[in-house]
Amino acid sequence: MEAYRIIDLLHRDWIGKEVVVNGWVRTFRSNRFIALNDGSSQRSIQCVVDFEAFDDNLLRQITTGAAVRVSGTVVESMGRGQDVEIQVRDLFLHGGADPERYPIQPKKHSMEFLREQAHLRVRTNTFAAVMRVRSALAFAIHKYFRENGFYYFHAPIITGSDAEGAGEMFRVTTLDPKDPPLTEANEVDYTEDFFGKETNLTVSGQLEAEAYAMALGKVYTFGPTFRAENSNTSRHLAEFWMIEPEMAFHDLKDNMDLAEDFIKNILRYILENCEEDLLFLEKRLLDEEKTRPQAERSELSLIEKLKFVTDNEFKRIPYTEAIDILRNSKPNKKKKFQFPVNEWGVDLQSEHERYLVEKHFKCPVILFDYPARIKAFYMRLNDDGKTVGAMDILFPGIGEIVGGSQREERLDVLEKRIAEMGIDEKELWWYLDLRRFGSAVHSGFGLGFERLVQFATGMGNIRDVIPFPRTPQNAEF
Amino acid sequence: MEAYRIIDLLHRDWIGKEVVVNGWVRTFRSNRFIALNDGSSQRSIQCVVDFEAFDDNLLRQITTGAAVRVSGTVVESMGRGQDVEIQVRDLFLHGGADPERYPIQPKKHSMEFLREQAHLRVRTNTFAAVMRVRSALAFAIHKYFRENGFYYFHAPIITGSDAEGAGEMFRVTTLDPKDPPLTEANEVDYTEDFFGKETNLTVSGQLEAEAYAMALGKVYTFGPTFRAENSNTSRHLAEFWMIEPEMAFHDLKDNMDLAEDFIKNILRYILENCEEDLLFLEKRLLDEEKTRPQAERSELSLIEKLKFVTDNEFKRIPYTEAIDILRNSKPNKKKKFQFPVNEWGVDLQSEHERYLVEKHFKCPVILFDYPARIKAFYMRLNDDGKTVGAMDILFPGIGEIVGGSQREERLDVLEKRIAEMGIDEKELWWYLDLRRFGSAVHSGFGLGFERLVQFATGMGNIRDVIPFPRTPQNAEF
Repeated sequence: MEAYRIIDLLHRDWIGKEVVVNGWVRTFRSNRFIALNDGSSQRSIQCVVDFEAFDDNLLRQITTGAAVRVSGTVVESMGRGQDVEIQVRDLFLHGGADPERYPIQPKKHSMEFLREQAHLRVRTNTFAAVMRVRSALAFAIHKYFRENGFYYFHAPIITGSDAEGAGEMFRVTTLDPKDPPLTEANEVDYTEDFFGKETNLTVSGQLEAEAYAMALGKVYTFGPTFRAENSNTSRHLAEFWMIEPEMAFHDLKDNMDLAEDFIKNILRYILENCEEDLLFLEKRLLDEEKTRPQAERSELSLIEKLKFVTDNEFKRIPYTEAIDILRNSKPNKKKKFQFPVNEWGVDLQSEHERYLVEKHFKCPVILFDYPARIKAFYMRLNDDGKTVGAMDILFPGIGEIVGGSQREERLDVLEKRIAEMGIDEKELWWYLDLRRFGSAVHSGFGLGFERLVQFATGMGNIRDVIPFPRTPQNAEF
Repeated sequence: MEAYRIIDLLHRDWIGKEVVVNGWVRTFRSNRFIALNDGSSQRSIQCVVDFEAFDDNLLRQITTGAAVRVSGTVVESMGRGQDVEIQVRDLFLHGGADPERYPIQPKKHSMEFLREQAHLRVRTNTFAAVMRVRSALAFAIHKYFRENGFYYFHAPIITGSDAEGAGEMFRVTTLDPKDPPLTEANEVDYTEDFFGKETNLTVSGQLEAEAYAMALGKVYTFGPTFRAENSNTSRHLAEFWMIEPEMAFHDLKDNMDLAEDFIKNILRYILENCEEDLLFLEKRLLDEEKTRPQAERSELSLIEKLKFVTDNEFKRIPYTEAIDILRNSKPNKKKKFQFPVNEWGVDLQSEHERYLVEKHFKCPVILFDYPARIKAFYMRLNDDGKTVGAMDILFPGIGEIVGGSQREERLDVLEKRIAEMGIDEKELWWYLDLRRFGSAVHSGFGLGFERLVQFATGMGNIRDVIPFPRTPQNAEF
């Protein structure tokens, strides 16, 4: 008989039917009740064993983590919180899990311990829920873009360009690590390297996405990006996934409209499709917060936070206005900010963003029209000559989740900005071509996927929302 | 007025309506007919200009590649092959494209030339069609897996493990390229590197996907993978995208069933959703084949080939049977194979696979149960002790498009295979854990996305189905 997924069986319609299921034992109580989970759902199915009918030796191996196949009849359950259970007729052990050695026992484990067991941690309820929500979010992203006329574009991962300047890069090479070939000037001779030049891992697919937007209209990337920065924080990864839409004929306002609609839409998707996992994660977060002082607990529960985003307009304010608010704010006047806000032109720090989002507006905020001096070369210079059409979306608890801009489409202005920033124009010959031939207003943004998953699942550390995190000193598995 | 996408306007329902569209000029004939394309469709919309009503200087800049905004009325078209056209009232030039300098003029360009203009080649009809089909295929893949209970799993790109052995790897490093730190034994001291160890770009996410399948049941990867091999062929890339599903409780037959159903389903999706692009690519292929000798032309057109795959069962035969067929084949007896097939156990070469698929069976073929000696350590040893539960799917014109296997779930057998192959077991501690704790029958396969796009679009060179190809000596853009 073909095996079923547990999620498909957890309904009264199945009562009286013969079924086969495979899964892993979560718990085995009283030599009688197996909670069996196959990853298809947060919920396990209860399998009831008549222990007198089975070999003792077999039953001794039914321990947490063991893989088993169960055949039997679906019956109404008398247990709490479940409609049905399986009366077990046959029980087959795929593979045991020695309780003396199996690390994932049914008790509380620290997140640090589980990170060292990243190959097994997804067998816990928490990580399984996080990874199912992550998968659903990824699908919602593809679905949204597909339904809105975007094409999925694969930006190159290995890049010969380092012009974007978004951060430190990893070198990609096949040269002899100890005795690299040298030029006559005694420098490493990259013409001997695999690609005939120095290459790095990409920090962003934006520039290449612009090339595709200027032909296909609307495109997006969804791929891995890299930062070789020695940041050991709960918000940084050396390898993370990023979504970067890019749209021809869209100005900054269109860009903000799209970003807001996009985020609301994908969060709505998980509210509709991941209810059980979100309820579980909400409860987990509540339990976790109970251990903290009242002042550090969220006012809203996880699902309330998600609904707050989907149901409310994001507050949009220009950078200049944000500076005024911050300058006149209580923490600034009382010198509580680590970085005081005194004059127009300073870059905003995390503490300032959090004040605006969590204390002042108490909702997602879009800041726009930033000083040109603190932003990247490709952002469109506004008519005031000192700000650029940039926008950042700030989320409660997470900080910056989206960074975007209208792109400079005017060749002469772009060339001037590139020169001012000391970037080698030759590196960008093809990017400038996009302004030489058929240039037009266009915009885009980048959204860090793991930050979004953090927000959606309530997980405090970004290392716990990606299967195998890469951070300084850590590339296990 | 808000602008529309051209694909939405190409219907008679719009006749009489005022519209605004943005796009790029494909051609401008007789100072009167602009063929305008915005990437939303293979088809351009004809925009009719009354040249007496517009400034000469403006009209002179309406050249191939220029970006324009057109406002006007949709009217019935008298032209062939189009239902509607736009009577232009306003014409705005976003950005010109100097015909003396713009490389993508409306004439035939060589594929080699277009590769050097990879940032602009997507402005041609051919590349736009290829990339739209590529995007649709990617979506179909996510949709299929989502609808069939799989979770999308992001395998790590930077890996500290080189045990998979699928090919040469790229090193990822932040060490000083010229003067790397050395150990006392005068070797490169990787403990000083970013991750505290030697790291490489992944060649496959399979091993990590297995860890996730053994908790979530069914998972798949869809991400970039890398080979540092000096292969300058029309079938190899140094960076390419791969799809790797992995399923707990699935044996080799289930694996073949899934692979066949999956491929048919996603090809059906593009037949239903990319008709215009496929018709265009079919015609392009026909034109290209006309320049070749009759014997080298396909018997089937592009769409016929796709339908042939979706509508017919793949032929499944064991390796042993394939060897018999090849040994007794005409080319083998007449010594036409470069590698003669004499005995059981030899690896199959491309010429053998092509013979089986294109001459003998004339349909997609699944070969299975290969000699253990020529396959990877993780494939499940069959009861005969000399073959493993591997399977390859071979496609006409493309060769191997899928490689998969049932995985060895028995700890002792796996350890023995690892030792035989001289792999360091310590590297695989976590992979072996999957057999120590809750092990079960499981299977999976890998599908090279670009090979699939080649098959779906009829493009002869794999460099022409990925936006910015990476090959030896080439990492431009």
